[in-house]
Amino acid sequence: MTHHGHRYTVDHRLSDADENIHSVWDNSLDPVLTVEPGDVVRFECRDAVDGQIDVQTTAADVPNVSFDPVHPLTGPVAVEGAQPGDVLAVELLAFQHKGWGYNVFFPGEMDLGLLPEEFSDPGLHIWDLEGDVGHFVNDIDIPLDPFPGVIGVAPEEAGEHDTLPPRSVGGNMDVKHLTAGSTLYLPVAVDDALFSVGDCHAAQGDGEVCVTGVEAPMFVTARFDIRSDMDISQPQFETTGPYTPTGIDEPMYGTTGIDEDLMTATKKAVRQMIEHLHDERGLSRAKAYILCSAIVDLKINEVVDQPNWTVSAYLPESIFPN
Amino acid sequence: MTHHGHRYTVDHRLSDADENIHSVWDNSLDPVLTVEPGDVVRFECRDAVDGQIDVQTTAADVPNVSFDPVHPLTGPVAVEGAQPGDVLAVELLAFQHKGWGYNVFFPGEMDLGLLPEEFSDPGLHIWDLEGDVGHFVNDIDIPLDPFPGVIGVAPEEAGEHDTLPPRSVGGNMDVKHLTAGSTLYLPVAVDDALFSVGDCHAAQGDGEVCVTGVEAPMFVTARFDIRSDMDISQPQFETTGPYTPTGIDEPMYGTTGIDEDLMTATKKAVRQMIEHLHDERGLSRAKAYILCSAIVDLKINEVVDQPNWTVSAYLPESIFPN
Repeated sequence: MTHHGHRYTVDHRLSDADENIHSVWDNSLDPVLTVEPGDVVRFECRDAVDGQIDVQTTAADVPNVSFDPVHPLTGPVAVEGAQPGDVLAVELLAFQHKGWGYNVFFPGEMDLGLLPEEFSDPGLHIWDLEGDVGHFVNDIDIPLDPFPGVIGVAPEEAGEHDTLPPRSVGGNMDVKHLTAGSTLYLPVAVDDALFSVGDCHAAQGDGEVCVTGVEAPMFVTARFDIRSDMDISQPQFETTGPYTPTGIDEPMYGTTGIDEDLMTATKKAVRQMIEHLHDERGLSRAKAYILCSAIVDLKINEVVDQPNWTVSAYLPESIFPN
Repeated sequence: MTHHGHRYTVDHRLSDADENIHSVWDNSLDPVLTVEPGDVVRFECRDAVDGQIDVQTTAADVPNVSFDPVHPLTGPVAVEGAQPGDVLAVELLAFQHKGWGYNVFFPGEMDLGLLPEEFSDPGLHIWDLEGDVGHFVNDIDIPLDPFPGVIGVAPEEAGEHDTLPPRSVGGNMDVKHLTAGSTLYLPVAVDDALFSVGDCHAAQGDGEVCVTGVEAPMFVTARFDIRSDMDISQPQFETTGPYTPTGIDEPMYGTTGIDEDLMTATKKAVRQMIEHLHDERGLSRAKAYILCSAIVDLKINEVVDQPNWTVSAYLPESIFPN
């Protein structure tokens, strides 16, 4: 199945062969392709941990995963004529997964994810992806709305930069609404922009709380344009969502987190959602944490009622069997 | 117009007369009404600043607003049989506004709202409310989906507690999805729960960034039940949204805020949205700040890609004239 926006013609293809892959941001990397504004490129992207997890991997194997190749990105692509101060417009045209994906979380001692202190053992779910649907446990199905976890241009600052944190030039933003049909605007920091993409997610909740979305090797098709009329300091975008799994208003269960620290409020909301999924839906806490990362959305209800802020986690009830 | 869920019969009415109003949380307040589980109460609620703003007020009058009566709440209502450790279920049945409302922000020196350092002068918009629609400037209309800004039960701790911050027993949570048809679950801290409600908003963006929603005097109708089978530490809720102004997927413009501090990331996202509304939609910065507070939603995209988090602000394009 192809998630696509408008019709288009592919001008260039980049495979996921080693010569097209890099795993740090570095503005001295040689481009693997040079395109003109208006060109369409189809990128083959590896999964986030670069093939170290496959459909037979179990949670017991997770501690052996090396972070050295994270994230393998496809690129960089030089967009001819882009200059610092310009904006690179990336129209996301289509995503195609390869039939499987995974959510993983790592041993708590690695201090990754929102709640490492509560999950000392690692967790893993292998998702069977069938068309628009991903299969979980207990007959829970989630809709797939793929997007790139990492998408960005080279930073202004020289040297190698870790791909884990997002920056003003984009990168690992994990904006789940960058679906097919969306346009992302990135502030260009170096000549020819040097665009790269990877870490595709077949689905993700706002927050990505266990530290992964539904990680999946995927094809990404995008059209590039240069917008010299725009002036932005961090990424901006146009999207039509979806904002709910069904694309329309539907029943959600919400848990609030109220605290004087916004991050602590976020943790409280997610902790309560994990309890809810465990108590009311019969999931293990590990599966509940993973399901939060895959489909539960975090919204900031208020950041002004000092000294306490409210963050809520939203669980769509349509993912459960009737 | 009435925003309503299912049919119901009102068992009790509380007017907004002085004897039914209080403006601090205090578990020693005498209840103004005692109800049984299953009863329906229609509350008349004053606006957040207790009548100090009316349809002729201007921004120049804002510095004269006193905070002493904020927030006037209707109640408390004793729910017979509710005990500490129980959960009070509040089914929100209907909201009815009175034809007008306002968004206000205060002088920056008062240090209220998300961006007081950028708005030294106060701002005000008087909203004409017509049925389901609120009128802004430049032919911008927003849909009305009323909810109570402040809704909660008395705290366990004795004494008077300011109504500005929300707490584990609820209060000023500003969860915009507590619309008609929703059910709110509140952890009961004292005998008979002592429920109060007020600070109604005809609309609000997730975040309530300028410190007010579309503040409006309103009637709120709710049914009470006691759930001894539930065990919660902070409020939880069931809702069907809406999650977008139209209730379906629709075009949004997004601005990302990327920073190592979640609050700073939030500020960056909103600052960029204000610039966008000013540059692309011709609004003054004050009107843009107010529109963000009334209709722009804040979502946490990721809280795990250390050390930088991503928060985005989402502007629905359906509010603008074609």
